[in-house]
Amino acid sequence: MPEHTAASRLRLSGLCFLLQILNILLFAAFVRYSPGGSPGPCPPQLNCSRRSPASAFQQPRFQDAHIQVLLSFGLLVAFLSRYGPGSAASSILVTAFAIQWALLIQGFFYFFLNGKIYVEAQSLVSADFCTAAVLISSGAVLGRVSPGQMLLLALLEVSLCTLSEYILLGLMAVSDSGRSLTVHTFGAYFGLAVSRVLQQPHKDKRKREEQRDKGQQTDVFAVVGTIYLWIFWPSFTSSTTAHHNAENWAVLNTYFSLVASTVATFILSPLLYEESTPRMVQIQDATLAVMAMMGMAGEMLATPFGALIAGFLVGLISPLGSRFFTPLLHSRLKIQDTCGVHNTHGLPGVLGALLGTLLTLLATADTYGYSSPLEGITQSQEPVASSPKPVPSVACRLELVFPLVAQGSRTVPEQALMQLGALPLTLLLAALGGSLTGAVLKIRVPRCCRDAQYKENAAFREVPEEGSEPSANGKEELGISTLV
Amino acid sequence: MPEHTAASRLRLSGLCFLLQILNILLFAAFVRYSPGGSPGPCPPQLNCSRRSPASAFQQPRFQDAHIQVLLSFGLLVAFLSRYGPGSAASSILVTAFAIQWALLIQGFFYFFLNGKIYVEAQSLVSADFCTAAVLISSGAVLGRVSPGQMLLLALLEVSLCTLSEYILLGLMAVSDSGRSLTVHTFGAYFGLAVSRVLQQPHKDKRKREEQRDKGQQTDVFAVVGTIYLWIFWPSFTSSTTAHHNAENWAVLNTYFSLVASTVATFILSPLLYEESTPRMVQIQDATLAVMAMMGMAGEMLATPFGALIAGFLVGLISPLGSRFFTPLLHSRLKIQDTCGVHNTHGLPGVLGALLGTLLTLLATADTYGYSSPLEGITQSQEPVASSPKPVPSVACRLELVFPLVAQGSRTVPEQALMQLGALPLTLLLAALGGSLTGAVLKIRVPRCCRDAQYKENAAFREVPEEGSEPSANGKEELGISTLV
Amino acid sequence: MPEHTAASRLRLSGLCFLLQILNILLFAAFVRYSPGGSPGPCPPQLNCSRRSPASAFQQPRFQDAHIQVLLSFGLLVAFLSRYGPGSAASSILVTAFAIQWALLIQGFFYFFLNGKIYVEAQSLVSADFCTAAVLISSGAVLGRVSPGQMLLLALLEVSLCTLSEYILLGLMAVSDSGRSLTVHTFGAYFGLAVSRVLQQPHKDKRKREEQRDKGQQTDVFAVVGTIYLWIFWPSFTSSTTAHHNAENWAVLNTYFSLVASTVATFILSPLLYEESTPRMVQIQDATLAVMAMMGMAGEMLATPFGALIAGFLVGLISPLGSRFFTPLLHSRLKIQDTCGVHNTHGLPGVLGALLGTLLTLLATADTYGYSSPLEGITQSQEPVASSPKPVPSVACRLELVFPLVAQGSRTVPEQALMQLGALPLTLLLAALGGSLTGAVLKIRVPRCCRDAQYKENAAFREVPEEGSEPSANGKEELGISTLV
Repeated sequence: MPEHTAASRLRLSGLCFLLQILNILLFAAFVRYSPGGSPGPCPPQLNCSRRSPASAFQQPRFQDAHIQVLLSFGLLVAFLSRYGPGSAASSILVTAFAIQWALLIQGFFYFFLNGKIYVEAQSLVSADFCTAAVLISSGAVLGRVSPGQMLLLALLEVSLCTLSEYILLGLMAVSDSGRSLTVHTFGAYFGLAVSRVLQQPHKDKRKREEQRDKGQQTDVFAVVGTIYLWIFWPSFTSSTTAHHNAENWAVLNTYFSLVASTVATFILSPLLYEESTPRMVQIQDATLAVMAMMGMAGEMLATPFGALIAGFLVGLISPLGSRFFTPLLHSRLKIQDTCGVHNTHGLPGVLGALLGTLLTLLATADTYGYSSPLEGITQSQEPVASSPKPVPSVACRLELVFPLVAQGSRTVPEQALMQLGALPLTLLLAALGGSLTGAVLKIRVPRCCRDAQYKENAAFREVPEEGSEPSANGKEELGISTLV
Repeated sequence: MPEHTAASRLRLSGLCFLLQILNILLFAAFVRYSPGGSPGPCPPQLNCSRRSPASAFQQPRFQDAHIQVLLSFGLLVAFLSRYGPGSAASSILVTAFAIQWALLIQGFFYFFLNGKIYVEAQSLVSADFCTAAVLISSGAVLGRVSPGQMLLLALLEVSLCTLSEYILLGLMAVSDSGRSLTVHTFGAYFGLAVSRVLQQPHKDKRKREEQRDKGQQTDVFAVVGTIYLWIFWPSFTSSTTAHHNAENWAVLNTYFSLVASTVATFILSPLLYEESTPRMVQIQDATLAVMAMMGMAGEMLATPFGALIAGFLVGLISPLGSRFFTPLLHSRLKIQDTCGVHNTHGLPGVLGALLGTLLTLLATADTYGYSSPLEGITQSQEPVASSPKPVPSVACRLELVFPLVAQGSRTVPEQALMQLGALPLTLLLAALGGSLTGAVLKIRVPRCCRDAQYKENAAFREVPEEGSEPSANGKEELGISTLV
Repeated sequence: MPEHTAASRLRLSGLCFLLQILNILLFAAFVRYSPGGSPGPCPPQLNCSRRSPASAFQQPRFQDAHIQVLLSFGLLVAFLSRYGPGSAASSILVTAFAIQWALLIQGFFYFFLNGKIYVEAQSLVSADFCTAAVLISSGAVLGRVSPGQMLLLALLEVSLCTLSEYILLGLMAVSDSGRSLTVHTFGAYFGLAVSRVLQQPHKDKRKREEQRDKGQQTDVFAVVGTIYLWIFWPSFTSSTTAHHNAENWAVLNTYFSLVASTVATFILSPLLYEESTPRMVQIQDATLAVMAMMGMAGEMLATPFGALIAGFLVGLISPLGSRFFTPLLHSRLKIQDTCGVHNTHGLPGVLGALLGTLLTLLATADTYGYSSPLEGITQSQEPVASSPKPVPSVACRLELVFPLVAQGSRTVPEQALMQLGALPLTLLLAALGGSLTGAVLKIRVPRCCRDAQYKENAAFREVPEEGSEPSANGKEELGISTLV
């Protein structure tokens, strides 16, 4: 066993080395800093002291996106509150690799210009989004794959996620600024598909109590994770809106739906479970579900009470799904969902896409006005028209959220059809990609290690059933044993 | 007992449901997004790419205010470091409800225009302040009221807090940008009044050691809480100053007084207690006390050493109050103060109001100059006049901090009188409102539950004295048992 | 013993009192708010509502610098993850004192104008940097000096650090915007020199296992610390660049090298240690090492793959140094390095200075172009020239990073020589200053206390070897016993 472990340790070490050298070579060959973007447009008069407004605002957004990727998704939310700090190391490895890889892959899709990929802060935000999808997926298979397999999963998923993003956002011009579809829905169903392929029939009994038997430390992490989501996520859902004016509503809408969803958790939790107040993990799940849903709908909602209703409904649906649908998923479809990503990212993402389609239809009907923006100055019969300067604002919002509709090159029903059609397409791509990735990961697993693999992190995760698994010592609790 | 608990669980669930439906209906009837504010003033030329400076800076402030409300007040500071993560759930519920309710109530007071409440980011910051007062009050009664009672407390206090804010800031034009009076003093004495009404004579013996017998986890939370206060509170005290130029001094003043107060804690702690270095909870209390005091005085202080002296004094007074005044409060006035809000918010808020009055008088005497701003250009005898461009700056600061004085419609002593008079008025409103609220809460408590109620969270809070209280099991440590 | 302890407690109390009164008096005599800077340049027309862009951007930077000083250096990184929350109190005391003192000392060096020190937000950022150096140094001697000695160390080191900064940045015009030399290298070697002087021959055996025998709580803090470094440090390394346009590359470069260094840790850790995945503390150390290195080189690197290579190398060298060089340091030079600051700040700082020298030479050779910026418009043979507007940008960057070279008053080799010469000068100043400080601290230690001093915090830090040291009680674990 020690020799075998030594071999597998060296294998992970060698895999990391190869991938990092590959990244460095590809970066050396293709990636350069965007000369115009980053150092600012310097006029020839050497007037360097003025900072362009664009670059001034990129920095906080970049930071917010990182805070999300690292804190909320990767470490605090998905991993720390369920698996303890031991799993954080492998998730940081995945993050470090996936960001480089996403930058390269996205560069090949989008930024290829004169044979070079020009990088600026915005590129890193896109790469962070892609990394978030990988981390969501890994939440579905956590504890059943080794760090080496995680790296392979990141390698494949980044490519497929970028492809899906390119089709949806680039070709179909779907409005999804907070990435309900391309990050949350894609990541969740991709992970579930991988989990389906990797599942083992005789091991699927012991997942039931997973959610309930956590100690106090779990709750501490869930408190911290929830607070971070409340603070930073509203900016995250609006961090890729290129148009600054529509952003404010996205933040406020996300915030309102967050509040309503939290109250909804307090309504449903006493009915579903024995406890009088919900556990922090449930509040955190409600928070995550709101975020996944408001990714697309956040900038489309035009009234605060709409956001309240949407948040209220998703706050009711998500725990119901967790209570009744997840066991079904497990027993009928043989899909294990370690961190419950289906209820926190998958289902809410689907709801968000449906809500977005509905809002796309409604938007023009009464809220945004039928008129094209160019004649928007003449009409004043909408509800908001009684306040100063409403009309151009409405015209502007339409142009910002649905530029093709505002330009007249696409009608409202066409745009709604695109929004709706993006949903099955995303599900299809995620299911196919996940199954493919799962099959690749399955090849990579040597037969002899399969059992040992299932045991990793087990001490932290669940109460062993067979008794054959001894209470793991401190070392196994802290680190994931690495068996590529 | 189980049936009773089930009934009370459903009662909380139903109360949440009713309140949330009420909120949604009121929002649907009255609340709309501010059409000019949020999406930015779009000129009719469809020139949407330019962001107005106002909206650009609202976002970080909004975030800072949230960080304060959620992290510092609600979760980390008041609750986590004393009660563990279990109490965080109910404080998040209170936060979620109080923000919606405060938005509505404040809208009825301030923003009612054409029958609609127009909401923008600034409205949410105001609602956050009001929520902060509720959370401070709940710190005084924590552990003795159920989540349902907390909701009722929030319902009533938000209304009264908004009324007090309207009288002080709107009608009397008191300068209190960091809300020393309307948030800290009001919240603390409101909570103490509620605590006075809810107190039970035969239970008041066992509060003595509350502060001292905490384990290591408490200290971890206190460390995190203190760091967050150091980082974010200086922005919080200046987050509602509409005038951006005076803000910078508020941040620096708060920071200087923070530093001096921390050193003062190290001076006094070895004298008052046996320990050589103060515990982190004491440093955190000193930090909170500085914040409460500098709310009003922060933007008025004109020299760094003034801030150092103010912070030094409050860092000395606050622990002295905690050592000698709190036991008196408890034994004479029968007021239990679970989280010690009197020393961290009440007393420093009163000191801040007195300091603000003094500074209002002094401001014109030497620092700001006697002249009205219109003739400020001609005078140069102040100490700062030897540096470039001081005179217009001084005139501006006067106009920013005391606009009525600068405009000549109010003399300096009149303004000082207003600042001074606001203090007893706040105390009166808080005491009356708190007593009223306590009476309402008392009606709501069924007689049979009163004892059980007192036990909730007891295991976490204190060592039982009577021995009749068994060492609570793990579940009671984590969640607050809910007995509406 | 109790009397002695009471005396020493009062001595710390008195020392704090004296120092704080001294600070207040010096502030009262010398420090004033910068009248032009903080309240904004107000035109005489009382047009106060416009905020200058400069002050608008200072606030977030000021906040970022604090986040670094308090969270990363002082509390989370160096102390919490190794010593538990007990040591946080004394580090907050050091921070509170050092910031005031650094403001005064730096004011005497830089800001003395008309007999007054004019303070603005930027002054506090500089004071924060100086405080960071003190906290790094204290990491080398933590657990072996009392809080009172810490204050003396801060008193002396702030003065010497400001002197070193004045010589390097002011007189020699070395480009070191992220303070690789003046903060990281200076702080680390200063602390090691103090540690060398304070070491005791018969006590040096028991430091070996220090790094390894930590429980799970350590890992939690390391996770949180690592995440904070990832999020906030890229802004920290660029927080003092006065020129906003070159900043963006510094952030991106730091970020890229961070990612590569993390992967490198995963490569080396299985080879050096038994574990398959690195512990979070090792990842955190790699993160810190990158930060220290990229302080100088961050704004000089012109390509992403250069940052990847630099981060990859430092991620390999730092653990190797920790494995092979630290024991040598300990056995040969008799230097105890409690928190391992040599590997996380000292060595990477030296590597950063060498890299900076190399980049200074390379910069003009191919990346920045030989031409002076005034004729930069005419040349287009560099690799980046094929993209829009590259030439003025290159000229600008040269001017921003090396203003003297761009102005023609210094040639490129001269600048490189200055960068290189700054390294031995910093090492010399740090070694001399540290030895001096250590000698002063040694005088202050009464002979009788020396043994007791060594025991403080021992329970938390290490397994005692002699058996004579009883397992410390709870109180000693939480607070540092104060024996001035």
